[in-house]
Amino acid sequence: MEEVLAPLRDAVKQQGDLVQQLKEQGATEELNKAVAELKARKKILEAKELSLKPKDDIVDRAKMEDTLKRRFFYDQAFAIYGGVSGLYDFGPVGCALKNNILQVWRQHFIQEEQILEIDCTMLTPEPVLKTSGHVDKFADYMVKDSKTGECYRADHLLKAHLKKLMSDEKCPAEKAAEMDDVITQMDNYSQQDLADLFVKYNVKSPSTGNDLTPPVSFNLMFQTSIGPGGNMVGYLRPETAQGMFLNFKRLLEFNQGKLPFGAAQIGNSFRNEISPRSGLIRVREFTMAEIEHFVDPNEKVHPKFSNVADLEITLFSSKAQTSGQSAQIMRLGDAVEQGIINNSVLGYFIGRIYLYLLKVGLSKSKVRFRQHMENEMAHYACDCWDAEALNSYGWIEIVGCADRSCYDLTCHSRATRVPLVAEKSITPKVVNVTQFEANKAAIGKEYKKDAKLVLDYLSVCDECYISDQEKLLSEKGEFTIETEGKTFTVTKDMVSVKRFQKTIHVEEIVPNVIEPSFGIGRIMYSIFEHSFHIRQGDEQRTFFSFPAPVSPYKCIILPLSPNQEFMPFVHQLSEEMTRNGVSHKTDNSSGSIGRRYARADEIGVAFGITIDFDTVNKTPHTATLRDRDSMRQIRAEVAELPAVVCDLANGILTWEEVEEKFPIFEGQESNKKE
Amino acid sequence: MEEVLAPLRDAVKQQGDLVQQLKEQGATEELNKAVAELKARKKILEAKELSLKPKDDIVDRAKMEDTLKRRFFYDQAFAIYGGVSGLYDFGPVGCALKNNILQVWRQHFIQEEQILEIDCTMLTPEPVLKTSGHVDKFADYMVKDSKTGECYRADHLLKAHLKKLMSDEKCPAEKAAEMDDVITQMDNYSQQDLADLFVKYNVKSPSTGNDLTPPVSFNLMFQTSIGPGGNMVGYLRPETAQGMFLNFKRLLEFNQGKLPFGAAQIGNSFRNEISPRSGLIRVREFTMAEIEHFVDPNEKVHPKFSNVADLEITLFSSKAQTSGQSAQIMRLGDAVEQGIINNSVLGYFIGRIYLYLLKVGLSKSKVRFRQHMENEMAHYACDCWDAEALNSYGWIEIVGCADRSCYDLTCHSRATRVPLVAEKSITPKVVNVTQFEANKAAIGKEYKKDAKLVLDYLSVCDECYISDQEKLLSEKGEFTIETEGKTFTVTKDMVSVKRFQKTIHVEEIVPNVIEPSFGIGRIMYSIFEHSFHIRQGDEQRTFFSFPAPVSPYKCIILPLSPNQEFMPFVHQLSEEMTRNGVSHKTDNSSGSIGRRYARADEIGVAFGITIDFDTVNKTPHTATLRDRDSMRQIRAEVAELPAVVCDLANGILTWEEVEEKFPIFEGQESNKKE
Repeated sequence: MEEVLAPLRDAVKQQGDLVQQLKEQGATEELNKAVAELKARKKILEAKELSLKPKDDIVDRAKMEDTLKRRFFYDQAFAIYGGVSGLYDFGPVGCALKNNILQVWRQHFIQEEQILEIDCTMLTPEPVLKTSGHVDKFADYMVKDSKTGECYRADHLLKAHLKKLMSDEKCPAEKAAEMDDVITQMDNYSQQDLADLFVKYNVKSPSTGNDLTPPVSFNLMFQTSIGPGGNMVGYLRPETAQGMFLNFKRLLEFNQGKLPFGAAQIGNSFRNEISPRSGLIRVREFTMAEIEHFVDPNEKVHPKFSNVADLEITLFSSKAQTSGQSAQIMRLGDAVEQGIINNSVLGYFIGRIYLYLLKVGLSKSKVRFRQHMENEMAHYACDCWDAEALNSYGWIEIVGCADRSCYDLTCHSRATRVPLVAEKSITPKVVNVTQFEANKAAIGKEYKKDAKLVLDYLSVCDECYISDQEKLLSEKGEFTIETEGKTFTVTKDMVSVKRFQKTIHVEEIVPNVIEPSFGIGRIMYSIFEHSFHIRQGDEQRTFFSFPAPVSPYKCIILPLSPNQEFMPFVHQLSEEMTRNGVSHKTDNSSGSIGRRYARADEIGVAFGITIDFDTVNKTPHTATLRDRDSMRQIRAEVAELPAVVCDLANGILTWEEVEEKFPIFEGQESNKKE
Repeated sequence: MEEVLAPLRDAVKQQGDLVQQLKEQGATEELNKAVAELKARKKILEAKELSLKPKDDIVDRAKMEDTLKRRFFYDQAFAIYGGVSGLYDFGPVGCALKNNILQVWRQHFIQEEQILEIDCTMLTPEPVLKTSGHVDKFADYMVKDSKTGECYRADHLLKAHLKKLMSDEKCPAEKAAEMDDVITQMDNYSQQDLADLFVKYNVKSPSTGNDLTPPVSFNLMFQTSIGPGGNMVGYLRPETAQGMFLNFKRLLEFNQGKLPFGAAQIGNSFRNEISPRSGLIRVREFTMAEIEHFVDPNEKVHPKFSNVADLEITLFSSKAQTSGQSAQIMRLGDAVEQGIINNSVLGYFIGRIYLYLLKVGLSKSKVRFRQHMENEMAHYACDCWDAEALNSYGWIEIVGCADRSCYDLTCHSRATRVPLVAEKSITPKVVNVTQFEANKAAIGKEYKKDAKLVLDYLSVCDECYISDQEKLLSEKGEFTIETEGKTFTVTKDMVSVKRFQKTIHVEEIVPNVIEPSFGIGRIMYSIFEHSFHIRQGDEQRTFFSFPAPVSPYKCIILPLSPNQEFMPFVHQLSEEMTRNGVSHKTDNSSGSIGRRYARADEIGVAFGITIDFDTVNKTPHTATLRDRDSMRQIRAEVAELPAVVCDLANGILTWEEVEEKFPIFEGQESNKKE
């Protein structure tokens, strides 16, 4: 296998070295091209690696999706009205699974880390998302069929068109190479580049052959209008994070002014995809769970890091990626010590995310953390790792974990003039202060009732800005400021710069923020793939091996037949489980036990209890308890069973421990084919 | 008290009788007027009744809201951007309380009743809400300031204007009476009536004195556009109910085709209020929890009704309301037997709702169920009761519980041509069948490729419709149909009517639906009011007496001082509680124990543990456990405490039982003023 991959690894490494070299030379234009080529080579390497994996490790997606649909885990929303693509409804099983995934999330993060959970509105007024950059940058290019108005994502369409041209036997090799080059660089093109390429390759509407409009930028937020006036533009939030930033001051106060602390939010976000596809992976309305961990930038050390330092995790570092290496299993502590992961706070969260993903049912061998390469990362982030799950679509990002430095708080603070800072007591020290000294009379005379705006603005400027303006003052005699949509010219007679020293006892710090951000739908979909199995020897029988704590139902209660004499035991068990908060189902339909177990397995019910004639006729009354994954059974007293199931469901007890405690039962079938 | 109320009661009764009389006469126009007057008289009676209640029962709203804001239970969203009215963010305490209210809801309804919970999208395409009637009827009238564009709800503004005119000393009595009459009838006015009244009373913009535009209908749904084309209008759902109706077939199948079953959904809904007010009572984005219980209309009997039949509940029947009587405490079983509540399914849910409301902390004496009067009820509903909570805004609807008959399923079925029915095995019987028999050749010849549309349409018509068209056919020789936006003329040669008999073995039934619908924000606000208390003898100390299962934090852990020797015990307790899933806080700040308890009481933490010198110095290590409401304390071993708190938090154990089991502790202060 390595033999086949070696040349591909070399190709990546070569290109990685070139990128490094160009970066050092500061050759921006060539650099972008080289980076695109690097990404393309990485993609080829990864595709090859995946294709060489043993095939039995890949889920039968069609079979799985049939089960998901047939048993209503989830399905297309508004189907009886023709459906809307990218919108899905979760049925009883999917909804219960989702609730459990979130409940485990709350225990694992909110409770364990004493995080402050909040719940903000999805409706968001425009200025907030202007500051965050979403109004200007959260967009894709699209083209429209000039007659039908049908819309396509420009890059997807261009790529499909070129691939079709290239597949033509008559396509000359050099032409094909050129097109391949275009595909490689797809992410780098500007609106004009794309427009030119659509003309050059004569791209038409794939469904009608009609002309296409030139590419336009399409913002991916759902827009609406808040209130009756029609003048307050609002959007459905594209992420939950902004709510934590906007409430920073209240949260800091709730935490009695102390750093560090984490805030979190679980809720829906929205993304108006141009052409949604890939089922739950890319949808228009989705549930996220996000944490913003606020920390003093000078104290980026996590006190509990040692709890996770010994975890062995598959890490795919930026360096490995640019040098053609594979992801590597590393001890988390070593990765932080060697500086592969920027700091131990980020490292701690990577460890905790990893533990969470295993807890809810992802396979160890199909989870990795991939570091963003420098050119992928937002300019303000100082390190970023994505948890990725391997499924039939390839490696898919399911959790992001970024150190966003002080970017978000700084932006909102600048836009609102509300200082979003924490105070820290320090040993008193003398510092240099630079301030504008405003001439109120002069400003008042010039700007009348707007004078206050100008004075307010001048009072909050930082040193760096003041020095820049001072230079302008001495060179040009004036500078201009913009505030609340108005522009003012400030002249020499209106302001001077004052420098002095003062002793301070507290220091204001803008916290840095570490942001683990979970896509719940994607995690859920990956759980489906990683836990879908076919029973050995019977293609028709499938099951989901959900871990008990997330199983949609913990237990199925089955009377051997609909015979009334079994019912008192069914009721006793059901009532006791309800009292213990154990979700369960009763199936007293007329199918055989084996058939009813198969139905329960199909939706991943963790355990099953059968009431049989021995239950009724013998004392003490006993019943069988069956484990879904192994299909093994034990026999125990009916009165004991609810507590056993409850402990199994909460992960306090394992099936192995149950087998040690109770006699194995090998009576009536449940694992045999009918 | 009754003396003062007697004449008011008489006035209501008199008017109630008049309404009844007019109804019998079928005098529609006079009836509307009389009903409005009846409502007005009821309002006066109720206001008087409330004003005569003992004053100490009314919460100090300003004081309570100060606490809610200061401790960040909830606060205005986007405050640093100036805020948006009608949008609120829940902070850590409010969010935890809300989660717990929902968690108890899931246990109480979903698990106990084995209801099928689903999770549908909030984005909803227009045709769905066209069918449900929201596109056409979910609206209020508004007027605009002709210069500033500021908007007002027409009825609110007119009422305020008239009240101001009436309060003028110079206003002649007859003029005042006339205006009073207008206010009384406010809910009955059409758009034109309102327009005329605005002119007649010369209403101007209250903030600028500018002219107002005539009233226009303003739809209260937030509109957006789904997908990039701009041609799919969508709305944010105004309720969660539609999701259950649209998924009816999938849910029925999930329930193996059997009735009855309940479906439920918890999630956000939206309402673009013209001018939101009253805090959490009337907001633009809110969480609902709704159940749709689907039942065979011929079997509206709940098998578990006997479980709730003995509940004594305050019922305010339609009859009591129209005859000027007060609400009465009744045994639920009697109310169903006497036909005051339409059927035992509805009765069962009323009982369960009542138990839920008490469980989450509402006061028994401040909850009632009010029946809709016939003229309030939607025309399709056959009975409807609102759970109302008494708080400082008066009696506020917090839960609706309606028997909506087969209305919703029928509408969606008609609009989509998808039969939303259940099948029921019956003893075979012979029935008459009426069908159109289409002449395919003639229709094909006339309508070419649209012929299928016509044939499809004719194949699904019901008997009543067929007979009507048959009459047209014989009278005029043709009739017209509309389908998929097109109109077709069907002539005698294209269709005939065929009548025959057949034996059927299953019957199709359109289920009726009982809909309990919970406004979570309103329930939460009512819990605040009902559980806010001031400590006797100390105006400054307040607490929320949330029941332990919904308390935002179950326990506060307090070391006597920040001294390090206490910390191992703090950690031990905290870790053990985390393991048990008990939410808790640690407060090792330097304030006195009393002060720190007061801070915890303020946010309704249910219990408190103090680590003192006896904990450290004596074995076995013991600590104190304090009950928030009584401020009484016991002393128990540290190792035992987490389990005790866990059982208290889950409602398995009461404080009284704890006092019986452990020695009372009366040592260090916690209830004394500092």
